[in-house]
Amino acid sequence: MFIHKKELQFQSKPDRPDPVMARKLQEILGGQWGEMSVMNMYLFQGWNARGDQRYKDLVLDIGTEEIGHVEMIATMIARLLDDAPVNHKEAAYESDPAIAAVMGGMDPQHAIVAGLGATPRDSNGVPWSGAYITASGNLLADVRLNLTAESQGRLQVSRLYHMTDDKGVKDMLAFLLARDTYHQNIWAKIAKDLEEKNGFVVPANMGEFEVTDVNHIHYNFSEGDDSKSVVEGIAPDGEPFEYGDKPVAFAEKPILNPGPPNMHATKDATK
Amino acid sequence: MFIHKKELQFQSKPDRPDPVMARKLQEILGGQWGEMSVMNMYLFQGWNARGDQRYKDLVLDIGTEEIGHVEMIATMIARLLDDAPVNHKEAAYESDPAIAAVMGGMDPQHAIVAGLGATPRDSNGVPWSGAYITASGNLLADVRLNLTAESQGRLQVSRLYHMTDDKGVKDMLAFLLARDTYHQNIWAKIAKDLEEKNGFVVPANMGEFEVTDVNHIHYNFSEGDDSKSVVEGIAPDGEPFEYGDKPVAFAEKPILNPGPPNMHATKDATK
Amino acid sequence: MFIHKKELQFQSKPDRPDPVMARKLQEILGGQWGEMSVMNMYLFQGWNARGDQRYKDLVLDIGTEEIGHVEMIATMIARLLDDAPVNHKEAAYESDPAIAAVMGGMDPQHAIVAGLGATPRDSNGVPWSGAYITASGNLLADVRLNLTAESQGRLQVSRLYHMTDDKGVKDMLAFLLARDTYHQNIWAKIAKDLEEKNGFVVPANMGEFEVTDVNHIHYNFSEGDDSKSVVEGIAPDGEPFEYGDKPVAFAEKPILNPGPPNMHATKDATK
Amino acid sequence: MFIHKKELQFQSKPDRPDPVMARKLQEILGGQWGEMSVMNMYLFQGWNARGDQRYKDLVLDIGTEEIGHVEMIATMIARLLDDAPVNHKEAAYESDPAIAAVMGGMDPQHAIVAGLGATPRDSNGVPWSGAYITASGNLLADVRLNLTAESQGRLQVSRLYHMTDDKGVKDMLAFLLARDTYHQNIWAKIAKDLEEKNGFVVPANMGEFEVTDVNHIHYNFSEGDDSKSVVEGIAPDGEPFEYGDKPVAFAEKPILNPGPPNMHATKDATK
Amino acid sequence: MFIHKKELQFQSKPDRPDPVMARKLQEILGGQWGEMSVMNMYLFQGWNARGDQRYKDLVLDIGTEEIGHVEMIATMIARLLDDAPVNHKEAAYESDPAIAAVMGGMDPQHAIVAGLGATPRDSNGVPWSGAYITASGNLLADVRLNLTAESQGRLQVSRLYHMTDDKGVKDMLAFLLARDTYHQNIWAKIAKDLEEKNGFVVPANMGEFEVTDVNHIHYNFSEGDDSKSVVEGIAPDGEPFEYGDKPVAFAEKPILNPGPPNMHATKDATK
Amino acid sequence: MFIHKKELQFQSKPDRPDPVMARKLQEILGGQWGEMSVMNMYLFQGWNARGDQRYKDLVLDIGTEEIGHVEMIATMIARLLDDAPVNHKEAAYESDPAIAAVMGGMDPQHAIVAGLGATPRDSNGVPWSGAYITASGNLLADVRLNLTAESQGRLQVSRLYHMTDDKGVKDMLAFLLARDTYHQNIWAKIAKDLEEKNGFVVPANMGEFEVTDVNHIHYNFSEGDDSKSVVEGIAPDGEPFEYGDKPVAFAEKPILNPGPPNMHATKDATK
Repeated sequence: MFIHKKELQFQSKPDRPDPVMARKLQEILGGQWGEMSVMNMYLFQGWNARGDQRYKDLVLDIGTEEIGHVEMIATMIARLLDDAPVNHKEAAYESDPAIAAVMGGMDPQHAIVAGLGATPRDSNGVPWSGAYITASGNLLADVRLNLTAESQGRLQVSRLYHMTDDKGVKDMLAFLLARDTYHQNIWAKIAKDLEEKNGFVVPANMGEFEVTDVNHIHYNFSEGDDSKSVVEGIAPDGEPFEYGDKPVAFAEKPILNPGPPNMHATKDATK
Repeated sequence: MFIHKKELQFQSKPDRPDPVMARKLQEILGGQWGEMSVMNMYLFQGWNARGDQRYKDLVLDIGTEEIGHVEMIATMIARLLDDAPVNHKEAAYESDPAIAAVMGGMDPQHAIVAGLGATPRDSNGVPWSGAYITASGNLLADVRLNLTAESQGRLQVSRLYHMTDDKGVKDMLAFLLARDTYHQNIWAKIAKDLEEKNGFVVPANMGEFEVTDVNHIHYNFSEGDDSKSVVEGIAPDGEPFEYGDKPVAFAEKPILNPGPPNMHATKDATK
Repeated sequence: MFIHKKELQFQSKPDRPDPVMARKLQEILGGQWGEMSVMNMYLFQGWNARGDQRYKDLVLDIGTEEIGHVEMIATMIARLLDDAPVNHKEAAYESDPAIAAVMGGMDPQHAIVAGLGATPRDSNGVPWSGAYITASGNLLADVRLNLTAESQGRLQVSRLYHMTDDKGVKDMLAFLLARDTYHQNIWAKIAKDLEEKNGFVVPANMGEFEVTDVNHIHYNFSEGDDSKSVVEGIAPDGEPFEYGDKPVAFAEKPILNPGPPNMHATKDATK
Repeated sequence: MFIHKKELQFQSKPDRPDPVMARKLQEILGGQWGEMSVMNMYLFQGWNARGDQRYKDLVLDIGTEEIGHVEMIATMIARLLDDAPVNHKEAAYESDPAIAAVMGGMDPQHAIVAGLGATPRDSNGVPWSGAYITASGNLLADVRLNLTAESQGRLQVSRLYHMTDDKGVKDMLAFLLARDTYHQNIWAKIAKDLEEKNGFVVPANMGEFEVTDVNHIHYNFSEGDDSKSVVEGIAPDGEPFEYGDKPVAFAEKPILNPGPPNMHATKDATK
Repeated sequence: MFIHKKELQFQSKPDRPDPVMARKLQEILGGQWGEMSVMNMYLFQGWNARGDQRYKDLVLDIGTEEIGHVEMIATMIARLLDDAPVNHKEAAYESDPAIAAVMGGMDPQHAIVAGLGATPRDSNGVPWSGAYITASGNLLADVRLNLTAESQGRLQVSRLYHMTDDKGVKDMLAFLLARDTYHQNIWAKIAKDLEEKNGFVVPANMGEFEVTDVNHIHYNFSEGDDSKSVVEGIAPDGEPFEYGDKPVAFAEKPILNPGPPNMHATKDATK
Repeated sequence: MFIHKKELQFQSKPDRPDPVMARKLQEILGGQWGEMSVMNMYLFQGWNARGDQRYKDLVLDIGTEEIGHVEMIATMIARLLDDAPVNHKEAAYESDPAIAAVMGGMDPQHAIVAGLGATPRDSNGVPWSGAYITASGNLLADVRLNLTAESQGRLQVSRLYHMTDDKGVKDMLAFLLARDTYHQNIWAKIAKDLEEKNGFVVPANMGEFEVTDVNHIHYNFSEGDDSKSVVEGIAPDGEPFEYGDKPVAFAEKPILNPGPPNMHATKDATK
């Protein structure tokens, strides 16, 4: 169960309206790696958690924090949309170039659909999708995904940070940078703990079933061997890497059986 | 530029047809973490790579290998669909229960749309999406994603391995398990190299801009402190973790400005 | 069965070409609440209608009218695209700012994909989706949705009305405003008739099954009680509202069973 | 900002595992009208609210409650998935019919992707989409949508209620039925208040601009006049309805200008 | 503008209810190549047509007919859903195998969402998408697409024809087979007319710009030359085919410039 | 199995950076008819091919070539993004109009998400979808789709050719124009061979089942008979066309049975 506190976790006031920046911020709200993704992903991981209750609690703590991040960015977007040129009536050809540029660069749905509010979409207006997230039930697989999400997410925040000189926006992004730093650290720490306990490879207990003679070899699928110097030494799971100069085809050319006539309806593809 | 070799990388012959298993294998072909995802992700990462050419070569090697994995699984699916009950004419109510179960459990598009072939979709028929992948231009962010993809992917392969006793299918899955083991190892190895060179947090050069007093603290967003024992010691980036017993609201309750009348059209929400 | 009349229901001639306005009009053509949505929604509701044939006829009347609205807006978009700067060859950096603004603000698919015609997409180019509509088989649930669609739709038309001074476009929008006024009225009228006949709550016959002691209470899920004054008096179904100062947790903290080992593959999450 | 309480709002324990019911419950979790939709919709409406703070508070209260409903259903799904036949190895043809039926009727992603947990998808595995929701900034338009969502949602809950005899599942659904009853009442009450204050038609201030002679007329777009008796009396906005026996074409047949030659590339379609 | 006639173009009455067949028919209603696709595609092509008015009329004729095909199949699906086991209450494990098979094989949304009616989705429940269709403005490109749609569509109808022995369903499919035969013929006939008038290659007027020395050569991108005997003789545009034994790389290995530091944030990928 | 050659098939170097052109090129990379579509479509068709091995080889040859086309365009996009104004900090209102126009016209995800690289999306940022392609198992249906894809694709390339005066971009497009010319020719040639062998209509063997008296008639679904002169003479399958002045309704008005009460819950729609 959840409770709402009216205060924001961090301030969300820009120095000036900027509808084009509002559009760009949609990426870290409703994009593939935005706050809606981490919020929903951590909540589902917590609800589905079948193991150690400490992790269930922790992932729900952070998921709950992320709801507040969505709130914070949505509020910022609404404020950046103040004074958007929504009532501008001239055709773009005849407009003042500055206004025309804002109209070209802003998200038209911010005005037409959302009445100057945030939308659950990315910076190109593509709706957020449940397919962006995963709660697999395997804790190590999932914290690796979480570490990834915080890495891609912080990267996007850092890029946005360099795209504006609005101090209010920069302050909020600086706060998000910091929280993402913590989140990268905690997910990596848990990953390391689990790797030490269960082994490096996910999932832990399949080693006996796999084709072990190809599980540390790099096949060189191109001409030249530029990649060779990367693949050397001991792999994280303790076995040595191997470099295969050429890919190997372990099977012959596949020829499929003909199908039933009323499926394929051409003589040469049917029985 | 790419060249096709007619031979398969590994064998793709099931012991018996099994249209229900064919549907399940669609998940590792066209699902969020299937082979189409790693194939396209690595190829885009390689094509977009602006830095060290050794990594560009390596990621293209593995991306090229993955095209062959899509081929291998597609071939297996086509063979598992042999003898699917596509010409069965009775209503399910009146059918032999075994046939009815196959018809209920197989993907109807395998017969109606694809003529007993594989589709670029997941085990529920949802089309593969470009939104499953990322090539961010930041190598560390991307290899973390790659490690994640190989972890989620291998997890799914391992689950499928336990869902059949068909030796041909198991052999192919055992081969994929092994390749995913190598791939997890190589992405983790590169991640470690880059962390040592550029620092642990992605992206590397934003530390000076962030709100440093909240970048290692866990806020406890729930009652009780089950999560406390997880957040202790030194974080991967070398700073100590901190545990905040309660979340802090750094900003007041947000109140948005009223909007222009012809946007909101109700008295209390407009200027 | 349907018949086409070549004449348009209303005129669709702009005073001047305006490719940026063409893009904006896509929202009311192929967006979530555009004419494709009401057209398809009413047609499916009519085709699926199992009850009173008068409603089946009425919803098909209006659905058929909406096909003509899609036609009208598509025609307007095609005309607004006349003289779009599709053959402009200079890079945006070096262009005349007015042309560059048009190029930035128009939908590139209007030129590249559709050859200066309308597309079945919204103002950001997202394809129309069957998931925008519902035909539930419950007439009251569906006319409430229809009233909503006409409300959101008319709101968008009204916003677009204020975004242009082109008299031809405004005239067409003024016609759509009027039809949406009628449509809001008729759906609300039917809703009222059905509420009087079957009861206010949808669906009608579940009252006996529900947990009646929580079916008129508002739980205050935040600090402060700003919302209190809204929740007072008698509810539309005739029972008094109640204000619960605090949310109640009727159940304990959930702990899930461990799963089978080959699903989760880590010791602490498995049996 | 949000806080998590570990207790559930209502109990989520089925009497027995039932993976097929787990799949069906996905519809009210991640479907078009499921709890993810109302949760996200109310939160976005609250965050974007520019007007009366009492409504902002109220919609956030209910949005916050809905996060707990997602939690409750996700927990139920995870428990219904206990003992799903995930390790069943025989082909469907050769299986025990009861097991084969469960395998055919359950969602394969529950096992392969989510490790016996809930997913952010509907009962056919289609991912939840941000396009399911709207926060338009017009309060009356939005509460009409909210009333609709609670009507469609409660309808689905009621149907599921009749699809099982598991007392634990029925109890949870009975609780949801009750909450949806309250929610339908409160949204309808606010709609009525706003209609009285601002007028019935959304948006309120466009009457002067519309083509008033067609704003209360029904056009009969089909043969026969079954629909006539529905369209009579006074409309909700106080004007009388009118019944137009035949549709009127106010404009002539549209002929588009030819396009530029390098767009259409065929002689008869270009200038 | 469109008019509805209450009669169906062809009968839509099955001999018996069959919810599993209802699901399969969704493919030709709301799938990639279903009737919603041809209906919307032809209508948009007609509305966007800038050239010869005879083609505009013809494509709108057929588009209008297709609305009636959607109606016909939707009606059939609703009837096949009569007596679906929607009130079955036992868990699948404990059910009668025949009922369990129907429950496993039917679309759960038919019951939960649509109340025993058709949905705008395919046989796996994926919503119909505007991305399935194209109206390009080039008539030859579009009639080739139309010929394709009628070919893929008729293929699916023919497969469904063999999947049932219900005479009512077969009769409707036999009617659709016939209409698709006509439609394939008419699109092919128009294509041939246009090829004779404007030339075979689409678009017509680019020959002077292309790299003519590679515009009739097949490059053999694999080992062996199985494909050689296919590529011989005179091509449809009158030039002879050529067989290139090996692919040619006309350009060197690409090396991208480093990017700006705050984009990539790792030393070796930045300026 | 596939091998990567480091050289590009054709050069991909623009004369100058142009981020707006980069966005437009996304259409032929990741759009409905872009190179990702033909690449994936031909590969799936090849892998699923059950008939004549010569066609399997040929379609895989061309599919393999198309992987190289994706590579070529991705490389071009990355180079066009050099010097995009990603670090521009002023709000659009206050910017230099030339920079503002570039910012408005470029794809924000090119900077925020992809770090100046190509994305698997179209020119509006919509992700590439597996639903764009088909491998039906019927060779004639599929080569007709392939011919269509090369026609729509070449049309888009030709339009882009006229949208720039950058010689490097034009050269690459001129190469693609030529390859598409070959591909249109080869697919049409195979189609003709198959039509001669199996008959014109797809699929070949259903003639006996269809309602033959309506399989060559055009029904005039609109007023006037503009379309009449198009439908005359002998159809491609050898039968004469017929022109039906009016559509015929072969069936009466459909009335559906009432449903079970707990599905529809209103008196008049239930048994």
